[in-house]
Amino acid sequence: MLLNRKPIAKILCAVMALVGASMLLPAAVAAIYKETEAVLSFLVCALPMMIVGILAVKLTPKEDNAVLRMRDGFFIVAFAWIVMSVLGAMPFVISGAIPNFFDAFFETASGFTTTGSTILTDIESLPKGILFWRSFTHWLGGMGILVLTIALLPMLGIGGQKIMRAETTGPTMDKISFTTNDSARKLYTIYIGMTVLEIVLLMFGGLDLFEASTHTFGTVGTGGLSTHSTSIAYYGSVYVEMVIGVFMLAAGVNFSLYHFLFTGKPKQMFKDVEFRTYLAIVGCSTLFIAVVTCVTKYYSSIWEALRYAFFQVSSIITTTGYGTADFDMWPVVCRIVIFILMIIGGCAGSTGGGVKVIRVVITAKLLKRAADRRMHSNVLDPIKVGGKPVREDTLAQVAQFMMLFVITIILSTLLVSLDGYSMVTSLSSVVACLCNIGPGFDMVGPTLNFALFSAPVKVLLALLMIAGRLELYTIVLMFTPVFWDENR
Amino acid sequence: MLLNRKPIAKILCAVMALVGASMLLPAAVAAIYKETEAVLSFLVCALPMMIVGILAVKLTPKEDNAVLRMRDGFFIVAFAWIVMSVLGAMPFVISGAIPNFFDAFFETASGFTTTGSTILTDIESLPKGILFWRSFTHWLGGMGILVLTIALLPMLGIGGQKIMRAETTGPTMDKISFTTNDSARKLYTIYIGMTVLEIVLLMFGGLDLFEASTHTFGTVGTGGLSTHSTSIAYYGSVYVEMVIGVFMLAAGVNFSLYHFLFTGKPKQMFKDVEFRTYLAIVGCSTLFIAVVTCVTKYYSSIWEALRYAFFQVSSIITTTGYGTADFDMWPVVCRIVIFILMIIGGCAGSTGGGVKVIRVVITAKLLKRAADRRMHSNVLDPIKVGGKPVREDTLAQVAQFMMLFVITIILSTLLVSLDGYSMVTSLSSVVACLCNIGPGFDMVGPTLNFALFSAPVKVLLALLMIAGRLELYTIVLMFTPVFWDENR
Repeated sequence: MLLNRKPIAKILCAVMALVGASMLLPAAVAAIYKETEAVLSFLVCALPMMIVGILAVKLTPKEDNAVLRMRDGFFIVAFAWIVMSVLGAMPFVISGAIPNFFDAFFETASGFTTTGSTILTDIESLPKGILFWRSFTHWLGGMGILVLTIALLPMLGIGGQKIMRAETTGPTMDKISFTTNDSARKLYTIYIGMTVLEIVLLMFGGLDLFEASTHTFGTVGTGGLSTHSTSIAYYGSVYVEMVIGVFMLAAGVNFSLYHFLFTGKPKQMFKDVEFRTYLAIVGCSTLFIAVVTCVTKYYSSIWEALRYAFFQVSSIITTTGYGTADFDMWPVVCRIVIFILMIIGGCAGSTGGGVKVIRVVITAKLLKRAADRRMHSNVLDPIKVGGKPVREDTLAQVAQFMMLFVITIILSTLLVSLDGYSMVTSLSSVVACLCNIGPGFDMVGPTLNFALFSAPVKVLLALLMIAGRLELYTIVLMFTPVFWDENR
Repeated sequence: MLLNRKPIAKILCAVMALVGASMLLPAAVAAIYKETEAVLSFLVCALPMMIVGILAVKLTPKEDNAVLRMRDGFFIVAFAWIVMSVLGAMPFVISGAIPNFFDAFFETASGFTTTGSTILTDIESLPKGILFWRSFTHWLGGMGILVLTIALLPMLGIGGQKIMRAETTGPTMDKISFTTNDSARKLYTIYIGMTVLEIVLLMFGGLDLFEASTHTFGTVGTGGLSTHSTSIAYYGSVYVEMVIGVFMLAAGVNFSLYHFLFTGKPKQMFKDVEFRTYLAIVGCSTLFIAVVTCVTKYYSSIWEALRYAFFQVSSIITTTGYGTADFDMWPVVCRIVIFILMIIGGCAGSTGGGVKVIRVVITAKLLKRAADRRMHSNVLDPIKVGGKPVREDTLAQVAQFMMLFVITIILSTLLVSLDGYSMVTSLSSVVACLCNIGPGFDMVGPTLNFALFSAPVKVLLALLMIAGRLELYTIVLMFTPVFWDENR
């Protein structure tokens, strides 16, 4: 048989039970706010999912636990996110908050993949419980992707992780020596600690627990769905913007590096090439945008310009997507900078999307070596990252990833453009979804939303979110004949 | 010394003499049309250039002919095109046709690189001699690039040619066994034969010798500068459009393949993978655009739609840039198809630009192999093109070229956007110049021109034309420290 169906079904049932269980928290929130309808919607989804899921797992005879092969692993990872998005969409549909299933699927995929694109036009009118669930999917998705990239994907040999591993297995990291369980536990600790700290800090800024927690979920998961249609601009508070801005940046860092904070060696973090490049890009982009928007009189003072530039740069490079300024109104050169940041994305092993800073670093080094070889065809220097040589097959994978990324963007833009919106709208909606950012430009700009697209395009964009989240190959593989070829 | 200055200067002087000599033909055209001022402008440039150039070559003592190294070769190729564009711009400036030097440089670079972008707003008002020179630069540039890619670049080991060589050194091509001189002579014959044939065919269509020859120069060089601001739409003749459409397609084919026509084996052409892919792309794109523009009622009949779709597809994929329809008004999905064709470009070893069909084929195969390897990490199949394995270092070069191409587009768009025009304008002007096409979208669309940009952006775009024409590396190398490093 091509796939080991029983163990796959079992794992997907376990995922279903987990999604069901996590609906109990928004149900409780809805209960607190006395939203009876929302409570019922959550329970009517959560209970059957939990019961069926748990029963399926418990009742599967032990002897059916065949060993999972690589093909099964890919299938599970790809379908887990689709299953999560379909099941997670149910409360939206049942409660009537998002009556159309495709819209709800888009919104939930946007949540779990920590993208943050929305099809909602009137966010504030929704019940609090529903809004809580919408933000909570970000938090769950962010946690999921951390565990996946740092603990599970390496077993499948998926690109992003291989890079991260190549990057972090220096003498400085050898001492940490993760085991899968150990690293997953450390990740939980850091992720939850970060969440609690940000909620507390935001509550100091005057937000109530509901607002503080929903916006924290969107921050640490680098999601970006807000409970206000004007996003973070709603608060108009420099303090809130700085807290969220800094926490977004922190969520875009490789979580493995936080071990150095615990081992009392914070300086070691700065030895990481990806981390330093990431900070340099954030610094330069912020400064550049601030100067340009100030010189062109878009903002009246350099401080005002720095405030909005920093927040948007942090929000976009980490692929969060929260907004305090409508960057689609900025001078065109600033918009191009934002567009480039969208593609770069966060660090490998973070909750951020995009192609990841380390791949950009490696691509630059690859091209430099190519130029050297043109001049001296006998040059065979290995490419070094952080002083350590990178394996040639890892380099080839980075190059392939970049090409696949560009081709996915081009072909998806072609399909999205069938809906007839402008070239910038078509292109930027694809980039915003594939890189897990949220807003794009033009008709999907920061003050607008994705409601305009047809249902097939929404489904395509949702699949792009999942593909982007899973380092492309996992989803792309599902569409290749070789995956479904019995004989390979 | 870093560069062998004397032999380099000698070769560049020879180039100068050639450019001067080729101005005698437009001078004669100007004389026929009794344009005294234009005649003088050409002679005042041509004579000093020829005299100084020939003297410099003749007077250089033999012992200064040091052996040229690879570095010198790169330098000569890169600077020859810059020198040609600067010198070729002189008649435009002196005659007052294009009084601004940067504008004239842009226009001449556009001519010699067979790009076809123009800064002219009122083309018809210019003297015939000037218009003839403008088109003649296409013909010279087309010839130059054929000789360069098929005869000279292989000696420098530059990518495009290596691919072509890898592609064409099958048993079917072995019999031809080029020597540099031999292949250059065969190229002249084919190129001149094509030119004469098209001029005759266009004259049958009612064009006079001037119009027939200027438009033929733009066709066989895949340039696209026309003597009418409405381009080929001016004639409104299906016959003229079909002749030009077919000859554009022919100019986008690898010229090595035409040997099969002479050896009486035209069927062999169809065994070439690149050629077949090229025809398939043209066929599918034409059909797709025709159906969409017909269904959306942009054109009233399928025949009308096919007529305009075929001409534009042929014009864009070959990177010519002639127009019969304003494709920027087509439905957005058709515009995206046009954009994709812009990037694909013609076949290697043709006068067309873009990334070349063979690189697209190889990239697709690289990604297919990458997917296979995800599933079965022990797969090590070599990639075959036309049944023959492609060397791994050629594959790596293709991947690097694609990445360099995308990065060049992104960074150049950033610079062009400093002029403040729309994102589509900034992006498409870069693609139009780098891929040697001519028109872009929005403010640089088919019915508009490049006059709007500032002088620095015009110079950047002109350099991009040259970089694109020379397979990127030649120009990019000039900007790398390794090229100027004495010790390497």
